[in-house]
Amino acid sequence: MNVEIVTIGNEVLSGRTVDTNFAYLARVLEESSVQVIWHSTVGDTAERIAEGLSRALDRADAVVMTGGLGPTPDDVTRKAVATLLSRPLQLDESVLANIRERGKRSGRKLPSTVESMALIPRGAEVWPNPVGAAPGILIVHREKPVVLLPGVPNEMEALAEEFLVPYLRQRTGRAVECFTLRTYGSFESQLHERIGAMPEEWPGTSFAYLPSYFGVDLRVTVVGNNDHTVRETALRAYNELMAKVRGVVYAEGGIGMEEVVGAILAEKKWRIATAESCTGGLLAKRITDTPGSSGWFERGFVTYSNASKLDQLGVDEATLDAQGAVSAAVAEQMAQGARERAGVEVGVGITGVAGPDGGSDNKPVGTVFIALSTPLGIVSRIHRLLGTRATVRERAAQTALDMLRRHLLELPVDPSLD
Amino acid sequence: MNVEIVTIGNEVLSGRTVDTNFAYLARVLEESSVQVIWHSTVGDTAERIAEGLSRALDRADAVVMTGGLGPTPDDVTRKAVATLLSRPLQLDESVLANIRERGKRSGRKLPSTVESMALIPRGAEVWPNPVGAAPGILIVHREKPVVLLPGVPNEMEALAEEFLVPYLRQRTGRAVECFTLRTYGSFESQLHERIGAMPEEWPGTSFAYLPSYFGVDLRVTVVGNNDHTVRETALRAYNELMAKVRGVVYAEGGIGMEEVVGAILAEKKWRIATAESCTGGLLAKRITDTPGSSGWFERGFVTYSNASKLDQLGVDEATLDAQGAVSAAVAEQMAQGARERAGVEVGVGITGVAGPDGGSDNKPVGTVFIALSTPLGIVSRIHRLLGTRATVRERAAQTALDMLRRHLLELPVDPSLD
Repeated sequence: MNVEIVTIGNEVLSGRTVDTNFAYLARVLEESSVQVIWHSTVGDTAERIAEGLSRALDRADAVVMTGGLGPTPDDVTRKAVATLLSRPLQLDESVLANIRERGKRSGRKLPSTVESMALIPRGAEVWPNPVGAAPGILIVHREKPVVLLPGVPNEMEALAEEFLVPYLRQRTGRAVECFTLRTYGSFESQLHERIGAMPEEWPGTSFAYLPSYFGVDLRVTVVGNNDHTVRETALRAYNELMAKVRGVVYAEGGIGMEEVVGAILAEKKWRIATAESCTGGLLAKRITDTPGSSGWFERGFVTYSNASKLDQLGVDEATLDAQGAVSAAVAEQMAQGARERAGVEVGVGITGVAGPDGGSDNKPVGTVFIALSTPLGIVSRIHRLLGTRATVRERAAQTALDMLRRHLLELPVDPSLD
Repeated sequence: MNVEIVTIGNEVLSGRTVDTNFAYLARVLEESSVQVIWHSTVGDTAERIAEGLSRALDRADAVVMTGGLGPTPDDVTRKAVATLLSRPLQLDESVLANIRERGKRSGRKLPSTVESMALIPRGAEVWPNPVGAAPGILIVHREKPVVLLPGVPNEMEALAEEFLVPYLRQRTGRAVECFTLRTYGSFESQLHERIGAMPEEWPGTSFAYLPSYFGVDLRVTVVGNNDHTVRETALRAYNELMAKVRGVVYAEGGIGMEEVVGAILAEKKWRIATAESCTGGLLAKRITDTPGSSGWFERGFVTYSNASKLDQLGVDEATLDAQGAVSAAVAEQMAQGARERAGVEVGVGITGVAGPDGGSDNKPVGTVFIALSTPLGIVSRIHRLLGTRATVRERAAQTALDMLRRHLLELPVDPSLD
C-alpha cells in the first residue's frame, strides 16, 4: 500500500514552522509497511486543500492530511474535504460533548467557534483525540482511506499511534517487525565501520542510522508476507547487530536515557541529587521528565554563580580560585557536595563552557567536566562537545546520564574502552 | 510572483532526513515578496521528478527544485528536467574545469561519474557553486524560471543567497514588509474574538495565527507594488493590531520569553533565583538558555522532595502538612526562601501536579501554583494547565516567565484583567 501525505498550513508553507509532522508520519507509516510516495504542503484555502487531496487520490492508495482542524476561520480542512468528497458536515454530539467538557475543566470561557470542531463529514469515523479538542477523522472514499489529523504535533502523534497505525496495519495485512537500538558514545561512521554491509544479508530488511543529539539510533524494519519468516529474520538481525554494538546500546525502542538511568536507580533503591552549572537545570529536568521520578530524584542544585557553589555545595574556595569553576576538581566537589547535602547515594556534578562566550585556548567552548560520586566511587571525565550553546547543553546532559548509566552498571565510563 | 518548491530525495520522503531546505527557501523567498504557494516532496525517480515539475509549472510562475544534482546513479534531476523541457544535456566545459579543479585541490582521486555534474540542459544559465561541485541551473521555460539547486543545505543556501534571491527580486520588483507579534495568555480563539475581520481591511496583507506551547504568534505580511504604500499599510496594521492585543504581546520577531525577562532583569539590575518542584529544573534551564544569563540568574533550587523544600528553602513544615506541597502558601514560601537564601531581588516558586499520576479531585493533574517574591511584593496564582506531563511542565515554565514579566512591568499578573 502506498500513501500520500498532505500538510496544510500557511505557517508551514511560509517556512516559519518546520513541518516535523511529516517526518514522524513517514517513519511510522514505513514501520507499518506503508510506503510514502509523495508529500505536498498547501496553504489554508479550501481550493488548495481540495487540489492537494484530489491529486493525492489520483496517485496513492490512501491519503493522510494534517492541519487546519482548529476553531478559527483559517481552519478550513473539514469544509474543503467535505465539499470535495460530497459529504456535508454534520454536528457530532459526542465530539461536542468532549469539547465542552475540556472547556469546563480548563475553567476558561471558550468562544462559540470552538464548537465548529464538532462538525464532521457525513459517514466519517471519528477518532477521539486523547490530548486535545479536534478529533481525527477517517473517510473511506471509493475504497481509499482519507485521514484528517490535527496539526499540533503531540495531538497528531497520539492519534497516529492509537488509530492510524493499527488501522493501516490491519488494512495492508503484511507482516512487519521493527526494532530500534539506541546507542550513545559512537559516531555514525564508527558504528558503520563495525556493522558494514551486514544488513544486506537480512531478507526484506531496511536498515537506518538515525543520528541526533541523543546518540545514533539503529532502526531495523523487516517486511514480508509470512509472519513467521519476518519474525525469524528480525530476531536474527537483532542478535547479529547486538553482537557488534552491545557496548554502546543504552536502550531499545523509544526509551530515553533518563528512563534507563531512573530504572537502574529504582532497582538499586538509590536516590540522586544533581549539581549543575553550565547545563542550568537541564539535567534535573531530564531526570524529572520521567513520571514517578520522585522515587529516585531527591533534589537539584543549579549553582550558576560561584557564591552558590560555595554555600550550596561546599565547594572549596581555594580549589575554585586555583583551578577555576570549569575543572575536574570543582566538578567532583559539586558531585560530592550534592550527594552529602541531600543525604543520598548518588551525586552528579557538571561544570563547563556552553558558549558562545567564555571559552579560552585551554578550555574552549564545549569543554565540560562531569563527575559522579556514589558508593562505587568518585569518577570524573573531561568532554569536548561540539555545537551551539543549546547543543552543547543537550549533549552535556545526555553524556552525564550515559556516564552515570555506565558507572552504575559497572562498565568503563569511557565508551571507547568497551 | 508565486513560486512552487519541489524537494527531491528518498531520504526526505522516508522521514529519515528532515527537510530544512524548504523552510529556508520559503523564508528567503517571502522576504523577496515571492509567495510560496505549494511544496512537493518526491522520490528520486525521473518519473516523479517530471510529474512534480509539470504540476508546479501548471500552478506557479516559477519553480525551485532542490536535490538530485550529485554524481551518483540516484541523482536523476538533471536528466528528468532536460527530458521534460526538451533541452538535451550538454557538457559545460567551465563547470567541468571547476569540478576537476576541486578534485585536484581535495587531493582525492574522484570517480569519473563526478563529471556527470557538468551535464547541463541546453540553453540553461549556470550558477557557479561557491562551496561545492554541483552548480545551480536556471532554465526559463515559456517565460517561467525553473531553478535547480543542490540538496546539500550549505550549498543550496549559498546559491540561493548569491543568485536566486537577487534574480527573483529583480524579476518581481515588488515591495514586502512583515512582522510577528508574540502573545501569551490568550487562546487563539480569544485573540480571534478581539481581532475579528480587521486584517481584511489591510490591502495586500496576509495574517496568520501561529499557536504553540509558548503562546500564539500573530504574523503579518504586506506585499504590494509601491514601497511607500506597503510600509504605510504595515505600520497601520501594527498599530491597529497592537491596540487590540497589546496587553498579551510579550515580544516581536523571534525573541523568546526568557530573553524578554532577562532583558528586564538586566535593565533593573535585579538578580533571580528559582525554586521548582513540578518543573524539575525546566524554569532554570529556560532562563539559562540565554547567553550571558549569569548576569541575572544567581542560582536555582530543584526541591523535588519535601525534605529539600524544608531545608533548602525554609518552607514551614506546619504549612506543608496543613496545605500540602501543592498550595499557594508553599509556592509563596518557596519564592521567598529562594530569594532570601540566594540574597537576590527576585524569587520564583513553582509547585504543581505535572501528572500523569498524583492528581486529586481538588488538585487535578495540571494544577500549578506559581509565586513571585520581589521588592514590588509577593504574588501567587493558581493555574489549570492542560496536556501531557511534558506539556504541563513546558506551559508551567512559560506561564511563570510571563507572570514574572507582567509583574516586573507592573501589569496585572492575570492577562484576562488587561
